This record gives sequence, structure tokens and C-alpha cells, in this order.
Amino acid sequence: MSLAVINYHQGMSRWEPNARGRLLQAALELYVERGFEQTTVAEIAKLAGLTERTFFRYFADKREVLFWGAAALQELLVSTVAGAPDSEAPITVIGTAIEAAGAVFQEGREGALLRQSVIAANAELQERELIKLASLASAMADALRKRGVSDPGASLSAEAGIAVLKIAFERWINETSPQDLPQLIRELFAELKVVTGAT
Amino acid sequence: MSLAVINYHQGMSRWEPNARGRLLQAALELYVERGFEQTTVAEIAKLAGLTERTFFRYFADKREVLFWGAAALQELLVSTVAGAPDSEAPITVIGTAIEAAGAVFQEGREGALLRQSVIAANAELQERELIKLASLASAMADALRKRGVSDPGASLSAEAGIAVLKIAFERWINETSPQDLPQLIRELFAELKVVTGAT
Repeated sequence: MSLAVINYHQGMSRWEPNARGRLLQAALELYVERGFEQTTVAEIAKLAGLTERTFFRYFADKREVLFWGAAALQELLVSTVAGAPDSEAPITVIGTAIEAAGAVFQEGREGALLRQSVIAANAELQERELIKLASLASAMADALRKRGVSDPGASLSAEAGIAVLKIAFERWINETSPQDLPQLIRELFAELKVVTGAT
Repeated sequence: MSLAVINYHQGMSRWEPNARGRLLQAALELYVERGFEQTTVAEIAKLAGLTERTFFRYFADKREVLFWGAAALQELLVSTVAGAPDSEAPITVIGTAIEAAGAVFQEGREGALLRQSVIAANAELQERELIKLASLASAMADALRKRGVSDPGASLSAEAGIAVLKIAFERWINETSPQDLPQLIRELFAELKVVTGAT
């Protein structure tokens, strides 16, 4: 069912239920259909049945529609690291955090697929995505340091975790019959141990 | 001795000895002094005692002055991976390649320091740097696959190698009495083994 149909049935109320979700879905639909560059905020708002002003209440610009979840993802990773039992090894703590992120992606696979196809088609968005990953690694390393983990162990564990997330996500997003993402992440951490242990 | 003095003594010959090196040095000097955004190609060429036309014979734009070495670096990494003995484990092969890159950085520490300070001051350049690192990881993973290494081992080894390079470089560039970079890289690979092997 297209968004236009949904909006028709919902009508245009002054109270805007799930405005963010509607804007997100409309934006992804347009980015995929017409391309990111060719889509305007006005078009996104129109398809979502909302005003441009409402759009800017939720997103700084049309790029941020694709990255608004980054702050929540970072918060999830950092709080998972912070909340892990004291006795756990840094790489185990990072593994738990990355698995938690994987579970979130898995819940929204359809949106993740669309988002990924938009990002893959645009060099500027790919750069933004890499910045996001680097920031996540840096935030997790900081969270480990707050647990008393020293460097280079903190940085190495965090960077290794982001490498696993990146590889697991790419594999999972390209699968037609997707595996369980948290499980895939666990397997990749196990494989990383094998790979780096080779002499 | 400033470049202006060098140019005065050398005069302006029609044959332009080491034009690339002179442009590089002039660009870094101006980027550090005035900022990357505020510097023009005309100013770089003037300080190097060369014409704008000569500048564009060597570099596509003022950003590429900071990244022209990326192709050579990638070639070094890929050829080191390709040339390693068949019997070596993927992570050992990657370690050798990253150490070779470290040796190159070490030879040009002064330039690396200036370059790093310019990049650290500019978000767009940082994004470009992350793209470069991602490309290097991807190229090394491909080179491992050509050796018959399967995934996810190839991707994991390559990404782990880039993580080590990133952390080693950051540490080394911020040291006032810098350690031997290839040695630091070896230590970080050993530490990565310890970190990822923890259960």
C-alpha cells in the first residue's frame, strides 16, 4: 500500500500521528524512486501529508532523514557497554553492544534495505555513513575507558567491533534469505578471534 | 628556510625540478598558516614558484594535494599482500603490508604531521580520509581473495589491519618522541590477538 493511499484514508489531521515515521517512509520512497539529489523537502512533506515546517521540526535537512537514528544507535551502544558486568572482557562487552545494534537493524530490515540502496548510490552519503561508523567506534572506546580499560585495548576492541558490524551488516543486507543478524555477529566475532590468532 | 627564499635562489627555470614536491610543500605551508578553505590554487602555485597550469598538471584540485599519495599507498599494500609467501596466514600477510605502509609514513613524518593537522581542522577532509581508509581495506580484502582466502576471513583481516593502522598512526603522530612506527604496528597486532582472544 502506497503512502498516498495511507494518507488519503487517514486524512489530514492537525494532530500529526507518527509524523517522523511518515516523513521517514515518504523520504525513503522518493529517494529510491527519484534519487536522493532529485528529491526536495517539499516533495517529502507533501507525500507524507505534512507541511515543510513539520519536516524541519524533525529533521535538519533531507540528509538527516537517513541519519537521525545515529544518535539513538550510539546511545544504545554506549549504554550497553556501560551496563555490562565488571568482570566481562572488553571484547565481550563490545560484542554484546554490537549484537544489540544488530537486533535493532533486524527489526527494521525493510527500511534498512531502502536506506542502504539510497546510500550506496551517493558518494556524499557514503562519506557521512563512514563518519557515523567512526564516531560509533570512538564513543564505544570512550565508554570502555570509563570502565577502566586502557589503550590500545579500548580502541582496538571498539574498532574491531565496528569492523564486525560493518561486515555483518553488508552480508546480511545482501542476503535474499537473511540470517539472524545478532547470530551472524556472534559468528563473526568468533571468526575474528580465529583470524587474528593465526601465527 | 622558507620556500620563498628557496625559490628566489633557484630562480624560475622553464624546466621545473621536483614540481610536485614543491607544490606539496607550498600547499601544506599555506593550509597550516591560513587554513585549507582560505587557500587558493593560485597562492599555492605562486609560493612554489610555478604556474597554476603546472599545478593542474599534477593535482585535480587543492584537496587532492593532500590525497595524491593514496594510490601509491594502495598499490604498496596490494602488492605486498600479493607478494607474500603462500604459506602465510592472512593476518600475517596483512601485518606485513601495514608495516610497510608504516615505514613509508615514518620516512615522511614532518609532512605527515602537517597533513594531519590540516585534515583534523576540516570535516570534509576527515570524511575524505575515512573514504581512503575504507578503500584501502577493500583493496586489501580483494588482494587476499585473489590469494584464495575466503570471506569473512578476508574482510575481517583487512578491516582489522586498517583498524591497527589507524590507531598506530594516531598514537605515533601525537607522540613528541615518536616510537618506531612499524614496531608499534607489530605490537598492536599482537595486542589485537590478545584482545580478541579474550573470552
